[in-house]
Amino acid sequence: MDYQAVLEEVAAHARPYVRQGRVADYIPALERVSADRFGIAVADINGDVYGVGDWETPFSVQSISKTFSLALVMAQSHGGHDSIWRRVGREPSGTPFNSLVQLEAENGIPRNPFINAGALVVTDRLQTLTGDASTSMLHFLREESGNEDLAFDQAVADSEAEHGDRNAALAHFMASFGNLENPVPSVIEHYFWQCSIEMSCRDLAVAGGFLARHGLRADGSRLLEAREAKRINAVMLTCGTYDAAGEFAYRVGLPAKSGVGGGIIAVIPGRCTLCVWSPGLDARGNSVAGAAALDHFTTLTGWSVF
Amino acid sequence: MDYQAVLEEVAAHARPYVRQGRVADYIPALERVSADRFGIAVADINGDVYGVGDWETPFSVQSISKTFSLALVMAQSHGGHDSIWRRVGREPSGTPFNSLVQLEAENGIPRNPFINAGALVVTDRLQTLTGDASTSMLHFLREESGNEDLAFDQAVADSEAEHGDRNAALAHFMASFGNLENPVPSVIEHYFWQCSIEMSCRDLAVAGGFLARHGLRADGSRLLEAREAKRINAVMLTCGTYDAAGEFAYRVGLPAKSGVGGGIIAVIPGRCTLCVWSPGLDARGNSVAGAAALDHFTTLTGWSVF
Amino acid sequence: MDYQAVLEEVAAHARPYVRQGRVADYIPALERVSADRFGIAVADINGDVYGVGDWETPFSVQSISKTFSLALVMAQSHGGHDSIWRRVGREPSGTPFNSLVQLEAENGIPRNPFINAGALVVTDRLQTLTGDASTSMLHFLREESGNEDLAFDQAVADSEAEHGDRNAALAHFMASFGNLENPVPSVIEHYFWQCSIEMSCRDLAVAGGFLARHGLRADGSRLLEAREAKRINAVMLTCGTYDAAGEFAYRVGLPAKSGVGGGIIAVIPGRCTLCVWSPGLDARGNSVAGAAALDHFTTLTGWSVF
Amino acid sequence: MDYQAVLEEVAAHARPYVRQGRVADYIPALERVSADRFGIAVADINGDVYGVGDWETPFSVQSISKTFSLALVMAQSHGGHDSIWRRVGREPSGTPFNSLVQLEAENGIPRNPFINAGALVVTDRLQTLTGDASTSMLHFLREESGNEDLAFDQAVADSEAEHGDRNAALAHFMASFGNLENPVPSVIEHYFWQCSIEMSCRDLAVAGGFLARHGLRADGSRLLEAREAKRINAVMLTCGTYDAAGEFAYRVGLPAKSGVGGGIIAVIPGRCTLCVWSPGLDARGNSVAGAAALDHFTTLTGWSVF
Repeated sequence: MDYQAVLEEVAAHARPYVRQGRVADYIPALERVSADRFGIAVADINGDVYGVGDWETPFSVQSISKTFSLALVMAQSHGGHDSIWRRVGREPSGTPFNSLVQLEAENGIPRNPFINAGALVVTDRLQTLTGDASTSMLHFLREESGNEDLAFDQAVADSEAEHGDRNAALAHFMASFGNLENPVPSVIEHYFWQCSIEMSCRDLAVAGGFLARHGLRADGSRLLEAREAKRINAVMLTCGTYDAAGEFAYRVGLPAKSGVGGGIIAVIPGRCTLCVWSPGLDARGNSVAGAAALDHFTTLTGWSVF
Repeated sequence: MDYQAVLEEVAAHARPYVRQGRVADYIPALERVSADRFGIAVADINGDVYGVGDWETPFSVQSISKTFSLALVMAQSHGGHDSIWRRVGREPSGTPFNSLVQLEAENGIPRNPFINAGALVVTDRLQTLTGDASTSMLHFLREESGNEDLAFDQAVADSEAEHGDRNAALAHFMASFGNLENPVPSVIEHYFWQCSIEMSCRDLAVAGGFLARHGLRADGSRLLEAREAKRINAVMLTCGTYDAAGEFAYRVGLPAKSGVGGGIIAVIPGRCTLCVWSPGLDARGNSVAGAAALDHFTTLTGWSVF
Repeated sequence: MDYQAVLEEVAAHARPYVRQGRVADYIPALERVSADRFGIAVADINGDVYGVGDWETPFSVQSISKTFSLALVMAQSHGGHDSIWRRVGREPSGTPFNSLVQLEAENGIPRNPFINAGALVVTDRLQTLTGDASTSMLHFLREESGNEDLAFDQAVADSEAEHGDRNAALAHFMASFGNLENPVPSVIEHYFWQCSIEMSCRDLAVAGGFLARHGLRADGSRLLEAREAKRINAVMLTCGTYDAAGEFAYRVGLPAKSGVGGGIIAVIPGRCTLCVWSPGLDARGNSVAGAAALDHFTTLTGWSVF
Repeated sequence: MDYQAVLEEVAAHARPYVRQGRVADYIPALERVSADRFGIAVADINGDVYGVGDWETPFSVQSISKTFSLALVMAQSHGGHDSIWRRVGREPSGTPFNSLVQLEAENGIPRNPFINAGALVVTDRLQTLTGDASTSMLHFLREESGNEDLAFDQAVADSEAEHGDRNAALAHFMASFGNLENPVPSVIEHYFWQCSIEMSCRDLAVAGGFLARHGLRADGSRLLEAREAKRINAVMLTCGTYDAAGEFAYRVGLPAKSGVGGGIIAVIPGRCTLCVWSPGLDARGNSVAGAAALDHFTTLTGWSVF
């Protein structure tokens, strides 16, 4: 497979979709990103990386961080990794990504780890396991990506906190059901720090390599059992793109996780990890050009899990 | 009407219902109240007061305070009293009293001022109008009841705050829709202080006299226009007993407001205000013996708004 | 009280509201009624009747019939009148009048007898009790109104049946929970026939007199116990105007039942029954000019149950 | 791969789960099936078939038929196959399989073709395309399975119709939104006939071969484009096992469709189609022993789409 040629064709196909959609504007720090940006990178399982466009420009990972916090919690729970699943489900939510409705109907147990409520539970668990959830994630991402410059974006984290009433509501609500181990302000703070990490398509494709390598880290050591890595991919496919997961599976057919910063990572198990970035979002919070690019990538390569 | 005789017959009728139901146990300070208590008082519009049983024993007013905070907000908004109704509705909620579902569907506007979310909005408004919502209510209640000993119960307020994650969730959620004027912690604190006030049946029946006197205070001065007082009664009838308001209207046929401390105040417009207290609650949070007593009172007197 | 003068002032006040709102257009037979119509009638408890405007023009009673079917079922269930309440609730619905959501959550038991689902249950019961629900209602209305010309409007009934998929859905859904005694097509048919009856404001005010007379019929015989009549009024107040009952209680303060034909009946217990008609409906299905007229009537007379 | 050996090991593993769960008892015709049954079959893409246990015993396909009706509609809509997707979505439902809630919130457009409401829309479309939806499906299944004895089970179809109020409610409800092309009774009838078809594990594994062969039929002709076949697999993975699809993807990691008769078909794209059968169902309507068998199959073979 000539990845570079494929990525160039994909980028050409996606170009008309760039600037479509709407850049996330709920916090100023995200709003000022140019809608013109587009980048895509592929990291194959041997560690080779290819990219086109703005593939080396850092952007705010936002909800893509939820994949990594879930992986870290599963990795640190060897022998008892099912415990997190008593506190968060594995079903698609069927409602918008920060809905309180199901949380209420289901006694404070979020539907899955990729809606905000579920991610708060995972962060809470990571905080208990590590004593410092956001820093432990940053260190992991630096090691896996090989980019020691990765950092939190304090302006983004502060801005999230300022506009964080909805996440505070979710956290207090789960606390009222006894589903948090740490104080609400601490959980929210670590959650916002994780979301604020800045990474490029290159960084994310490389750092997510363990999902394509059935759990092996960049240095060949094992982060997760193969079974666990497959299961994260399964949750990404059914729940990774907010309430458009069914549509995304239908069109693209790959496990993927999106963020409102405009990034999407996707996994072709046994082959490679991709990351695409373009800030314009559709109504459900997924990058318009990013989804078009992944759709075209699977069309060109014939690679799909189905 | 020989009130004293009627009350004694009502108390005899209600006696078998005392100890039925379940004393509120979500905070320790409420849980330790004896289930055996029962008192009832009537204050007629001339200021005469009658009572039987534990009618002079103070108990935690809890949600009965919502009637008074609404009245105070309406009283302080002369010429513009409709403004609170842009931030809270007047419809029965149709769902349990602290539900987040409708709040989410209806953009952070609570259904009515007597569910927790709506009462938080009213407290927030009272805070803006007075600079000290809970103290202004305490002063009003002292004046109207003529009981200068009325006080907050700090143990109850602290206990509510400790177990206050659900109300914090409601407040943060409304703040995320821009429906709070003051900081969340301040609104919650004043709300808990208001709920913690200790009053007896006598105190509450007397203090609620303005609802039977079409808005006139105990000293003859006007708190509310007649139209406004009638409207508070209307909201009490349709929304005052959590999600049992229809049932309560059917059985009792009077405007009423209940609290999880076991108290219920009820109004017979133009005649009198009643307060009954017994701590055992039914599944919807209303006093079992209290409802039975009011039911029997309307049967004996033939008084009902219908 | 000079009823005639009051009604004339009320009509003058309501005039600007006529043609506001939107004439029901879901079936052709209703759509062709002129939006210009306005009439109002009062029948006092002695049988005197007053009216202005189009108060003698027949219109489609639609959901106002629900009040009469409930009364007939309660009247025919002496000694066991509570049985209907095992199959239908007494709580406001909190959601639009033909919602399936609560019906699903609550195992096929409709919230109250005035939403469509609840009225289908009441009709089903009336069918069991009488063998011919719609004819028995027609005969009752003829007797009470003294108007032997009352009749079904076949075009309306047929038109409802043609567009009756939503009511068929409700009925089949309740049947799936075992909450219908008669075959779905029969229940729906009688329901549509009842709704299609044509009556004037005069007819309805007179026929509804038993609600103001605490259960006594026009001929002085007893239809309902006083307690039962009061209870129907209570259900009208909390549930009679679709999901605007709280608002209606707040503004008007009277038990009332509206229909999409533009009619509203209202009760002042112990005094009189009113009926107002104007076809333009607000977003919740209540006559705009009709509600304005009742609001002004209570302002002028000072009569309100609160 | 020694399929026969694998199937035998899978059957041994699944054995303790047989008789767990609860045989569907909502219609008598299903209830009388013995809970002891267990069979599993694999058809590889070359047409070789392997099986163990009761793999040649016919059972009621029930909702597994939804996969075939969707495939037939897509196959008959060449050049315009997207039209069905204007009338039914592709998202997991997030609520139990026959819920009316989302249908109401989403204007009569069912969430996906595998919940009952969605399958009724697909059957309605197949009826329009073929003039006889159930017979056209029966003929297709006979041809693909090579079993000319396949037939409807009239007792099951009649029994479904007798207890069919909930499906009638769904169909009338969608009709009220204009989302049915054919009369409700006809759509329901064809739907019940399709569900009543009796097939064995062998028959179903063979007939579902086109899903593993990227759209090619048993005789090598093309039923669906490769892209279309992949998309059916995607919808099976995200929506095929009622509201347990996320859990099923997590545990088993294969596109699958279950039925309340106790059967489940699953697809390993490019390799084979499986069918397992055991009548005991879990709380969500999926075969307990069937899910355990598929879980163990993927563990033994390492085959998973992730």
